[in-house]
Amino acid sequence: MIIDCHGHFTTAPASHTGFRAAQLARLAGPALPAPPATAASDDAVREAIENHQLKVLRERGGDLMLFSPQASAMGHDVADPVTAQAWARACNDLVHQVTRLFPGNFAAVCQLPQTPGGSLDGCVAELRRCVEELGFVGTNLNPDPSGGRWSDPPLTDEHWFPLYEAMVELDVPAMIHVSASCSPNSHTLGSHYLAADTAAFMQLLEGDLFARFPTLRLVIPHGGGAVPYHWGRYRGLAARLGRPPLDEHLMRNVYFDTCVYHAPGVRLLHEIAGPDNVLFASEMLGAVRGSDPATGHPWDDTKRYVDALDLTEQDRRKVFELNTRRVYPRLNAQLEAAGR
Amino acid sequence: MIIDCHGHFTTAPASHTGFRAAQLARLAGPALPAPPATAASDDAVREAIENHQLKVLRERGGDLMLFSPQASAMGHDVADPVTAQAWARACNDLVHQVTRLFPGNFAAVCQLPQTPGGSLDGCVAELRRCVEELGFVGTNLNPDPSGGRWSDPPLTDEHWFPLYEAMVELDVPAMIHVSASCSPNSHTLGSHYLAADTAAFMQLLEGDLFARFPTLRLVIPHGGGAVPYHWGRYRGLAARLGRPPLDEHLMRNVYFDTCVYHAPGVRLLHEIAGPDNVLFASEMLGAVRGSDPATGHPWDDTKRYVDALDLTEQDRRKVFELNTRRVYPRLNAQLEAAGR
Repeated sequence: MIIDCHGHFTTAPASHTGFRAAQLARLAGPALPAPPATAASDDAVREAIENHQLKVLRERGGDLMLFSPQASAMGHDVADPVTAQAWARACNDLVHQVTRLFPGNFAAVCQLPQTPGGSLDGCVAELRRCVEELGFVGTNLNPDPSGGRWSDPPLTDEHWFPLYEAMVELDVPAMIHVSASCSPNSHTLGSHYLAADTAAFMQLLEGDLFARFPTLRLVIPHGGGAVPYHWGRYRGLAARLGRPPLDEHLMRNVYFDTCVYHAPGVRLLHEIAGPDNVLFASEMLGAVRGSDPATGHPWDDTKRYVDALDLTEQDRRKVFELNTRRVYPRLNAQLEAAGR
Repeated sequence: MIIDCHGHFTTAPASHTGFRAAQLARLAGPALPAPPATAASDDAVREAIENHQLKVLRERGGDLMLFSPQASAMGHDVADPVTAQAWARACNDLVHQVTRLFPGNFAAVCQLPQTPGGSLDGCVAELRRCVEELGFVGTNLNPDPSGGRWSDPPLTDEHWFPLYEAMVELDVPAMIHVSASCSPNSHTLGSHYLAADTAAFMQLLEGDLFARFPTLRLVIPHGGGAVPYHWGRYRGLAARLGRPPLDEHLMRNVYFDTCVYHAPGVRLLHEIAGPDNVLFASEMLGAVRGSDPATGHPWDDTKRYVDALDLTEQDRRKVFELNTRRVYPRLNAQLEAAGR
């Protein structure tokens, strides 16, 4: 079984994106009435999924994708908590609709109603709603709701503890994932995402979060940002800062996905973090669409890069399936209940 | 001949760091008199160099290091231009003193008196002074003087053009190098440096700077940040943004150094960017001091990782010497004049 742990609903129906436009219009003109969230029709969702993510998943031999709202559209930089709450709810309900229509192919991961410097109370409530009422198996967590200004404290700060406490209690992991960049200096897909992945890892390295939350699990996407490429730097900095070796200090709780869009990068990732800390993922249809003209293969067909690794059958299963089932136990329970 | 293109004076004499402390004290208490820059004695500089960078350079078989002021101490986030000018001048004079005392082992690269959002006039003047009067062969350029807030425009903006015009006229390259992070979210050495390297590359990718300045040369340190590890992402984004292939669009003007502190990272770097766009460097004594307990070898002994690459003799010479002589023609001229 092949599980892709990182996909977003980047092809959401127009009714959904229209709701967001209406929300932003109302923030610009507060005299407007609060727009109602309009659920997309099942037909519209089916069409959006069947012609895109599901089609590609099948073409590439994948079985199931962990699916969350579009990361770059989370809009956490908008400071109004009521807007954030309504938007996260609409996004999560839409993802839930996908899993209801295609239960065999998608499992749901939620968006939190974060705001820059805002309270996490609403995030904990939305996480509980998604997991307990709608069967979600994980969450995305934005380490920088401000979109590049880094106005919230590091991930190791107690600011985040109420959320971690809920995650531990519910036994769901978070994927650390920022939303769109608010700076022309940092391209969302080519710079901001990777910078945040890297910053998050370094924050964890500097702190001691997993002593406080030994069962907390965090997935750092995009192959861990710059981290595996600079693994010697991190090992050396850990020693310089008096931290334990990384395997002990972080790698019982931190995982990297395989959203690295060329074979040499995936090879390096596996060499550094594999086979127990690497989770198969493609983020299709995401940052990098289209195909490498040199090979004719899509950039984000990461299964091809993993297939090319020299892995034992057991290690291959770990990367494609078992690690994700282990990191997302609620997914595993759902799969077992379905006899998979 | 082995040239290390990336070293900083991280062990400067106390008189130098004391001047900076006096500068900052005066900014906090403007009633104080402007502190005079105090030149270090030749003996103090000799001791600082012979027991540190020169000792290590020799131990590891290096011949010459491109030497610039301590990057994390450039202090560009301090907005006062008079302070910045005096500090850059003192830093550059100190580096000049090193090259005067050890002309065979060090060549000088300057710090610019940048300030957040400030004019570049003083930077151009200091660059000219360093190159024309003191024999410097290159400069460091901070793409984010604000230390993480990214308050200046991207590197492709015409804001920077006066500096590029001077660099082209003087035929000196810039190493893109930020200073210390001003945010607890982004560790200077483990996050801010790599994020800036990555952001700079992506800014260049988005723009078309080298059409305007075809002979401008930029070195992106720390192995290009996250870029080589995510090379497929950048190739794909270039296509998605309608840019030419990277080899054409950027790689006639952009170079990566080898400050990647483990063998798998340097192998990946070479596989992606070698042999014509990789410049040997260690940044010793820099971010990552000490040795890998697994091997007993210093993390930043990057020569060891390059030695382990399967290279032709000619390609090895390119990485260790010839690429740097090509990118820094004023260095090459100095070496040729000395019969090297």
